[in-house]
Amino acid sequence: MENFVFHNPTKVLFGQNTLASIGPETALLGKNILLVYGRESIKKNTIYTQVTESLSQAGVSVIEHGGVRSNPVLSHARAGIELATKHKVDAVVAVGGGSVIDSAKAICAGALVDHDVWKFFIGKKSIREALPLACVLTLAASGSEMNSGMVLTNDETRTKLGFANRHLFPRVSILDPTATFTVPGSYTAYGAVDAITHLLEFYFTTELEETPIQDRLTEGLVLSIMESCEQALAHPTGYQARARLMWAATLALNGLTSAGLGKIGFPMHLLEHPLSARYDVPHGAGLSVIVPAWLTWQSRRNPKKIAQFAERVFGIQNGDTAASARTGIAALKGWFEKIGSPVSLAQIDVPQSALPLLAEDAMAQAAIWRMREYDKGRILEIYNCL
Amino acid sequence: MENFVFHNPTKVLFGQNTLASIGPETALLGKNILLVYGRESIKKNTIYTQVTESLSQAGVSVIEHGGVRSNPVLSHARAGIELATKHKVDAVVAVGGGSVIDSAKAICAGALVDHDVWKFFIGKKSIREALPLACVLTLAASGSEMNSGMVLTNDETRTKLGFANRHLFPRVSILDPTATFTVPGSYTAYGAVDAITHLLEFYFTTELEETPIQDRLTEGLVLSIMESCEQALAHPTGYQARARLMWAATLALNGLTSAGLGKIGFPMHLLEHPLSARYDVPHGAGLSVIVPAWLTWQSRRNPKKIAQFAERVFGIQNGDTAASARTGIAALKGWFEKIGSPVSLAQIDVPQSALPLLAEDAMAQAAIWRMREYDKGRILEIYNCL
Repeated sequence: MENFVFHNPTKVLFGQNTLASIGPETALLGKNILLVYGRESIKKNTIYTQVTESLSQAGVSVIEHGGVRSNPVLSHARAGIELATKHKVDAVVAVGGGSVIDSAKAICAGALVDHDVWKFFIGKKSIREALPLACVLTLAASGSEMNSGMVLTNDETRTKLGFANRHLFPRVSILDPTATFTVPGSYTAYGAVDAITHLLEFYFTTELEETPIQDRLTEGLVLSIMESCEQALAHPTGYQARARLMWAATLALNGLTSAGLGKIGFPMHLLEHPLSARYDVPHGAGLSVIVPAWLTWQSRRNPKKIAQFAERVFGIQNGDTAASARTGIAALKGWFEKIGSPVSLAQIDVPQSALPLLAEDAMAQAAIWRMREYDKGRILEIYNCL
Repeated sequence: MENFVFHNPTKVLFGQNTLASIGPETALLGKNILLVYGRESIKKNTIYTQVTESLSQAGVSVIEHGGVRSNPVLSHARAGIELATKHKVDAVVAVGGGSVIDSAKAICAGALVDHDVWKFFIGKKSIREALPLACVLTLAASGSEMNSGMVLTNDETRTKLGFANRHLFPRVSILDPTATFTVPGSYTAYGAVDAITHLLEFYFTTELEETPIQDRLTEGLVLSIMESCEQALAHPTGYQARARLMWAATLALNGLTSAGLGKIGFPMHLLEHPLSARYDVPHGAGLSVIVPAWLTWQSRRNPKKIAQFAERVFGIQNGDTAASARTGIAALKGWFEKIGSPVSLAQIDVPQSALPLLAEDAMAQAAIWRMREYDKGRILEIYNCL
């Protein structure tokens, strides 16, 4: 175990009929808020109505800022910052998945500074305060509802960057599994892949030899995400499966599974971001292409941990570490296919010829994340495993 | 999954050389503090010196309140409340294990009210505010360093009662595994039994049929506690084992493993408290006697979950649920014996003849905890499995 600080102050209200709490919870943060949401999907079901009625009943006045898209863009966050500043809002309420919550986080941080919010992303400025944020989650995937991270794409430069800062923890997040009943199968699958990838980033990048606590927590969460994702795909309105998928995805990236691992990296996210930035691939779909490739590359360096994963998650045991690792990677890739998530560049319409450009983009993120071992040579080596 | 609120605001600083942070962290809470600690053991090693020097350097002035004993008593907490009130302290710093931290929590709550602190324990009053608390943990066991619970024994009535309140979360807890290097083998073992029992209380008392996430987290933590306890007993100054034991014990009772389980109980604690209250048995030692007895009784009602535990933790598989459960209970009892923890009343010097009186005490706690199904008949039935 390496030294760590664990401090996650987000209050989570989890379960059925919790949406009605958004009003009273928000009223504790302020009376004048910016409501950030995505496309019209929350208006098709009852989520939008429930949230706005609850806010209204609690005496909270609302400025709307809809239209966040998946792979959220800087320009839209900038527009939100303008609105928040103009109307002097006290707080922000995000209703959506990780894209909406991340946009809202950027607005919370950007509304309190004079400079452009992108300076935080490129490491030119540090966040010292942020407007308080309340979230209503509608997609099990990113974990942003209970962590301090955010990712945005600069739509001028097509650069997708992300980072974490303690001022970005939501004050409160409402997780009602019924709010995910209408998530289509594809996004249910991509969300599961995203959450599993968060777990795998830590599990496979720690430099420590023995991390029994974190390994077991991670393996347990991966198994739970796989099971509940399959169940949710088979029965989209099955409450228990949606609930388990939602909570497991939140726990996958709330600090629990990385605490004590020392230096860790996000190489798979590093390699995926250029895909979704340049080709607007859904993030989880991009990851399900990248993950098997990165694991294949990694298995040449450290097959032992991959073999452990293969054994504990897929029950693969054949005595030979390298062979176990290979079988484990194939099993994970097979599972991605089973849930309908892509596993090749062709399936996400990214041409092989784009790889050198994507590698340049990945290098830019590597510099900011201080993962300088991910130079162009290594990045192309991994992309060539695709 | 049942609905739940998860909100754990405690900041944990974990690792080597973190004791020196107690001064700066405390200074954020106040300049005039009550220092609560136990017997002289922290003065034999360097912990006391490190803490007081750090506080002094941070400009924090200290009123001392040492002498907390294991199975901490109300009279000592009352004395602390008097001191805290007289000196108008801004905050409390606890240096010790669960007994010290729980005493400090009682002082934090009691110092801000006019009535006797015991009224909180018997449910006659609710805590509405408390002094801020900083902890330096010296024993892996109770989890009090990252939760909102506390347990005290009323030394007039010999009643041991406990409860939780959100104002009792420590603001900050410093977990330096080296501070546990000098914990004797017996208390290392009792601490492990205590932490495992916290996990088992939730695991075995949930009324839900399927709780895959919580089950896997729990099984992983139990395995990690068992492994690291054995290693710590073999090499008391082995950093990694002490670190894993410490973090796993904290995670065992910080809300993680119980979230979503619905109604749960603490029957094993209920049945143990009278033993430690009347006979001053170390809490973990009392639990290691009670746990196999409660499981034996429980196995007649629900062997399935115990069989699952037997399989996943001890690798026991024999097809017959009842037999697996029995073998699993024997394996756990055998493990308690292996680490030198008692498994019979005789080993803790409690006479069989005391059981009717102990049952009366347990009933009093059952009433306060609203576990009315634990009537005298059931309690004696379980005690008779001892």
